[in-house]
Amino acid sequence: MKLSFKNMVAAATVLGVSLAAGVSANAQDTLQDVMKKRGLTEKDILSAAKTYTPTGGRDEFIAFASGGQSGQIIVYGIPSMRILKYISVFTPEPWQGYGFDEESKKVLAMGNMNDQEITWGDVHHPAISETNGEYDGRYLFTNDKANPRIAVIDLHDFETKQIVVNPVFKSNHGGAFVTPNTDYVIEAAQYPAPLTNEYVPLSQFNEKYRGGVTYWKFDRKKGRIIPEESFTVEMPPYSQDLSDFGKGPSDGWSFTNSFCTERYVGGIENGRPPFEAGCSQKDTDFFHMVNWKKAAELVKAGKANKINGHDVLSIDTAVKEGILYLVPEPKSPHGMDVSPDGKFMIVAGKLDTHASVYSFEKIMGLIKAKDFAGKDPYGIPILDMKKSLHLQLSVGLGPLHTQYDSKPCIVYTSIYVDSQVTKWNYCEGKVLDKLNIHYNIGHLMTMEGDSVKPKGKYLVSMNKLAIDRFNPVGPLHPQNHQLIDISGDKMQLLYDMPIPLGEPHYAVAIAAETLKPIIRYKVGWNSREDVKHEYRSRPGREKVVRDGTNVHVYGTLIRSHITPEIVEVEQGDTVYFHMTNLERAQDQTHGFAVDMHNANLSVEPGKTATAKIVAKNAGVFPYFCSEFCSALHLEMQGYLLVKPKGTKSDASGPSVGTKYTEADYKGELATIKGTQDVINSVVGFITSQNYTDFKPVVALVEDATDQLNFAADAEKKHKAAAEKKDWQNATLWAQQHFQYQVKAADIGLRAKTYLEEHGSKTVKK
Amino acid sequence: MKLSFKNMVAAATVLGVSLAAGVSANAQDTLQDVMKKRGLTEKDILSAAKTYTPTGGRDEFIAFASGGQSGQIIVYGIPSMRILKYISVFTPEPWQGYGFDEESKKVLAMGNMNDQEITWGDVHHPAISETNGEYDGRYLFTNDKANPRIAVIDLHDFETKQIVVNPVFKSNHGGAFVTPNTDYVIEAAQYPAPLTNEYVPLSQFNEKYRGGVTYWKFDRKKGRIIPEESFTVEMPPYSQDLSDFGKGPSDGWSFTNSFCTERYVGGIENGRPPFEAGCSQKDTDFFHMVNWKKAAELVKAGKANKINGHDVLSIDTAVKEGILYLVPEPKSPHGMDVSPDGKFMIVAGKLDTHASVYSFEKIMGLIKAKDFAGKDPYGIPILDMKKSLHLQLSVGLGPLHTQYDSKPCIVYTSIYVDSQVTKWNYCEGKVLDKLNIHYNIGHLMTMEGDSVKPKGKYLVSMNKLAIDRFNPVGPLHPQNHQLIDISGDKMQLLYDMPIPLGEPHYAVAIAAETLKPIIRYKVGWNSREDVKHEYRSRPGREKVVRDGTNVHVYGTLIRSHITPEIVEVEQGDTVYFHMTNLERAQDQTHGFAVDMHNANLSVEPGKTATAKIVAKNAGVFPYFCSEFCSALHLEMQGYLLVKPKGTKSDASGPSVGTKYTEADYKGELATIKGTQDVINSVVGFITSQNYTDFKPVVALVEDATDQLNFAADAEKKHKAAAEKKDWQNATLWAQQHFQYQVKAADIGLRAKTYLEEHGSKTVKK
Repeated sequence: MKLSFKNMVAAATVLGVSLAAGVSANAQDTLQDVMKKRGLTEKDILSAAKTYTPTGGRDEFIAFASGGQSGQIIVYGIPSMRILKYISVFTPEPWQGYGFDEESKKVLAMGNMNDQEITWGDVHHPAISETNGEYDGRYLFTNDKANPRIAVIDLHDFETKQIVVNPVFKSNHGGAFVTPNTDYVIEAAQYPAPLTNEYVPLSQFNEKYRGGVTYWKFDRKKGRIIPEESFTVEMPPYSQDLSDFGKGPSDGWSFTNSFCTERYVGGIENGRPPFEAGCSQKDTDFFHMVNWKKAAELVKAGKANKINGHDVLSIDTAVKEGILYLVPEPKSPHGMDVSPDGKFMIVAGKLDTHASVYSFEKIMGLIKAKDFAGKDPYGIPILDMKKSLHLQLSVGLGPLHTQYDSKPCIVYTSIYVDSQVTKWNYCEGKVLDKLNIHYNIGHLMTMEGDSVKPKGKYLVSMNKLAIDRFNPVGPLHPQNHQLIDISGDKMQLLYDMPIPLGEPHYAVAIAAETLKPIIRYKVGWNSREDVKHEYRSRPGREKVVRDGTNVHVYGTLIRSHITPEIVEVEQGDTVYFHMTNLERAQDQTHGFAVDMHNANLSVEPGKTATAKIVAKNAGVFPYFCSEFCSALHLEMQGYLLVKPKGTKSDASGPSVGTKYTEADYKGELATIKGTQDVINSVVGFITSQNYTDFKPVVALVEDATDQLNFAADAEKKHKAAAEKKDWQNATLWAQQHFQYQVKAADIGLRAKTYLEEHGSKTVKK
Repeated sequence: MKLSFKNMVAAATVLGVSLAAGVSANAQDTLQDVMKKRGLTEKDILSAAKTYTPTGGRDEFIAFASGGQSGQIIVYGIPSMRILKYISVFTPEPWQGYGFDEESKKVLAMGNMNDQEITWGDVHHPAISETNGEYDGRYLFTNDKANPRIAVIDLHDFETKQIVVNPVFKSNHGGAFVTPNTDYVIEAAQYPAPLTNEYVPLSQFNEKYRGGVTYWKFDRKKGRIIPEESFTVEMPPYSQDLSDFGKGPSDGWSFTNSFCTERYVGGIENGRPPFEAGCSQKDTDFFHMVNWKKAAELVKAGKANKINGHDVLSIDTAVKEGILYLVPEPKSPHGMDVSPDGKFMIVAGKLDTHASVYSFEKIMGLIKAKDFAGKDPYGIPILDMKKSLHLQLSVGLGPLHTQYDSKPCIVYTSIYVDSQVTKWNYCEGKVLDKLNIHYNIGHLMTMEGDSVKPKGKYLVSMNKLAIDRFNPVGPLHPQNHQLIDISGDKMQLLYDMPIPLGEPHYAVAIAAETLKPIIRYKVGWNSREDVKHEYRSRPGREKVVRDGTNVHVYGTLIRSHITPEIVEVEQGDTVYFHMTNLERAQDQTHGFAVDMHNANLSVEPGKTATAKIVAKNAGVFPYFCSEFCSALHLEMQGYLLVKPKGTKSDASGPSVGTKYTEADYKGELATIKGTQDVINSVVGFITSQNYTDFKPVVALVEDATDQLNFAADAEKKHKAAAEKKDWQNATLWAQQHFQYQVKAADIGLRAKTYLEEHGSKTVKK
């Protein structure tokens, strides 16, 4: 029973092709059978057809949802509702190496505050960068409610690049939203607190606690926020909430709503009514209007005060300069949504039944005429609500957030208490449709619904409770995102998607074709700073450099070995493994884990990432590739040897296990020959086809060619060893030659299958 | 424009019902239209129908997949392929509060080793607990490859309860798998290393490096591993790999395969061929057979040695006592799968083309007859491969793992290099079908395929590369799990599911009906230890207790306030917020976050969880509920005030914002009356129906009744204040009365909708 690889390769390949060609749908299954068996209605089948995406299919839209207290961003496809990625933002995550490699640790460290390491975030509102008010797919911004911060994610590689701490807030909520050309990112405070970092007793709440709205200057070219060119407008101690920027006629203004304008402070433990009672007393709260363009000019003109080193425009200055106004809005509002044409702002109050449509034109008229209804206790002019409104409409119990359709005047409002979505016409003030959701919808999302050109088609209802919608998985339930077809007159529920990790609050969806992510980095790339990595390495240039007790390993990763494979250090050393992934092939990521030292890297093609470990204890610690990268993945290993201090190195090298003879070498050569025959036949097939018409196949052929070049290098080595009758090394290098052949065959077979499945044509024989 | 809640409530409710009733599928959409528009074939529609699960539908099977280097377990439904939950195991995760609350920090701390805090894991092989060889759905076990550990997850609440560090391994891979009654959980070493924690140079690799297999004793009643009753069998310095336990006739034995039995040590940086060359030289490796029942007896009889305080049976003792044998297997094997009847073991070698079916009966015959082919360098008897085999079959290039169908003799083997699944008959040795997958399949999974009663129906192909299957999301791709229908003669590809976080290696699927997770805890529960929480609190019993510089807050959470709402401490204090969730309603989880102090809890109904913070700096820090729990969620807030050391407390209490009059109170009373009318009409509807026939509605009614009882309490308070003409408190408590009404209305409306959607009948008028 000799295991002849050569014969088996040939047999299996032929078998695979012939059998695969014979696969077809089971004749006995009909759609009616399946519907009956699974209890599906015709409406269900229609919904299935509208969402099901066959293998290799593409989604039309990509959604970016906040992960809430998971500190991440969730990326999913619409209409398939398949989650494609969790992007780490504020929380360390080892699969991505985020917070484990030194490069991303630096990003996370930007977000530390209050002398504390912060290892999570409460991600609320992601925003996609815009050009002329349209989503351009370049950057994503999001806020952290619990620890007032903004993060910048580059959509060219879906990685977090920057975290900026708000120097004057103690919490936030109304961010991130962007100006039509992404000059500024907005972040509004939430719970009032002193803007300084002082302790101030609650007896001085009205006098010394404040809110605010921060305008973060964004440098599009660098892809980074510039804190020193950013500023905050001080606000009264109302709880500022959601924000939006104007566009078109309202460009230059921002709108931030608020709750608890009662300025109530609870204390149920002392018999005082709780916050929830005192903060929802009045029928109206206020939204804050700021002329941010003029505010930026005032800051440049030196009219701001420095608080914690940051420019803050005081309420007094803002009032005096005529850039800050208050407009009454229904109580405890949540959404603040400017219409695509910039003429209207829709607000809904969670403790009201109305959606309120404000007219920017009317408001500007009132401001111009100085026609104010009064002033708040801080001297800010208050506009008359009725005079500011285009109209109000009763849309349901607990309306919350409104999103725009591609069809003129059509909007959708989430109705929390009723667990419904209301479709209505905001020009005429008419309810058009209602749909039950499951259950307790928070925000909702239409496609590019925040932009100047909403795309319509789909709506996602982001439900806060799932309760009985899915198989039970313990006391902690998933969230439920429901996909709704809005292409027709009536809304149609299509799909229930559980969110398995995190609690999304807000989401934005972009046409998939607008996103152009890269598939590899330039070789030796520091992806977090987007520069060549200081410690990159190249094949054959790997080295270990000692600098006192710091040991720098300039290493590489490639299918299927790590260079170096043995690293010996002394107890107490700090070891930096700078690992460069030499692969160019798409999806050929390698991991790098050092056992028992809390180290794991995700090293995508071209990337250089650094694992820093402290060798606290002497011992033997394996390291390995933590991504199943190839057939020999388990053999992609090495040893970190930590010597007790002062121990001499053992120069005798590793002991030998199995010994090989000339016969072993000859055996290897036979296997190599047989394998080469198989490769030749696969190559023959591929080159007989119009394979250059298939981009993925061209990439595979390039990758296979690389592997065959490596094979040629190994061949030189085993021939040289054989000439010296060094059968040990000749046999081993011959095996390495064969390993590269296997990798080439793997890739070649994938290319062959691709051509067969995509109907390539024979162009030569 | 007075916003009258009362009228609007009535109007919206009527509107909601009438419009919702009128919703129907768009008449213009036909299945043909949708197929044409989306480019779907009839086969696609059939696949869609087999996987699509309408709102409220249930999956037939639940899969538990390892998250790989994410350190988590991924839970998804089959056939919908929707991910239901990520369970935190080895990696902190804030949404679940894992590694953020003190209770779960203790679980994570059990896993620290090598004087290092370990905040990730490389999760490979989950195993479900078994009773008589069948999945019982009680516990889940999994290993960490990088940091040799085993974790225990309780499936009654899907939480990790225990992490056990292997005291003698430096890495592992071949775990977790369980004995037929879950007496033991197996964990095999991976890369050889000294069993002690010493530094040993590689020149002594053959003499002092060792492998091993650990048998962890599990106490089913306690749901915990008992380390002191567990033991390890020493193995040669081969790289042990996957394991399985015998069943039926082979019960009492375990099987662990291996690679690199060449005992090769690489060193490419010094010109030595890499590990991948030397570790895949021989045509065969060995699987290790251990009589674990006898091994346990030997340990009890004192035949083990203590290494690092742990019982280890030496190779010499194991050989002498006749409990350890080696059987040759195809090179670089990965799977080791015992047949449901326990008579056969199937092994596949990744660098071979065969699947090899071993006969347990033949092997036992050889052992009994002492018919050995030789001994390995460590004295372990080696059986003859040919004599041990039932048969071998060529199944494809790079076969890896085999799973069993419910149909006799039918198995599926993953074929890595060919990117295929091969269906074959292992009794007769016949290939039956092949299916292309996308791409490079690692393990695969049939339903309960590891048990004595596989359920057939579905197969999941766990593909290591996705490449072009999904919309691109940067250089780091998702994995691709493909669902395959195996109910017919030919395999049918049904669905491609991206894995958005983590890299699953292995998965197990259980019939959904076997799982019985709870929906709430007993009030005041420490879920990680499953005991009453030492610091639990009850409504009205909340308190703050100082103990030196430690401050213990006995707090509660309920819709929509935190008690206490104000906590004042001194700089330098350590504050423990012990928060009990008083809710009984399903899915009514509250979060608890303290701004800028790296604190977040997930507090499910009944749970008590503790956030420990150190008040490093003086200042004002809001805290809040971090789950959108109710309409007044944003108002579920409080303040942590940190005074500079020695500052006197300000006894004057919070300053007052808005002041209320008798007229305000009267206004509140009117609103309350109007709202009560609405509630009465909803209650009238519900009680007119056969609502007690609907379990979810009964639960909702209970919850609503609770809210109305709270409302009655608030009513007493506002009436008492009004009697004293304290219009401030009267108005505020009246508002609180109204808030409870809104919560009751929310719940009532959900119940009403449920009854309408589920066809309740009128039983009284």
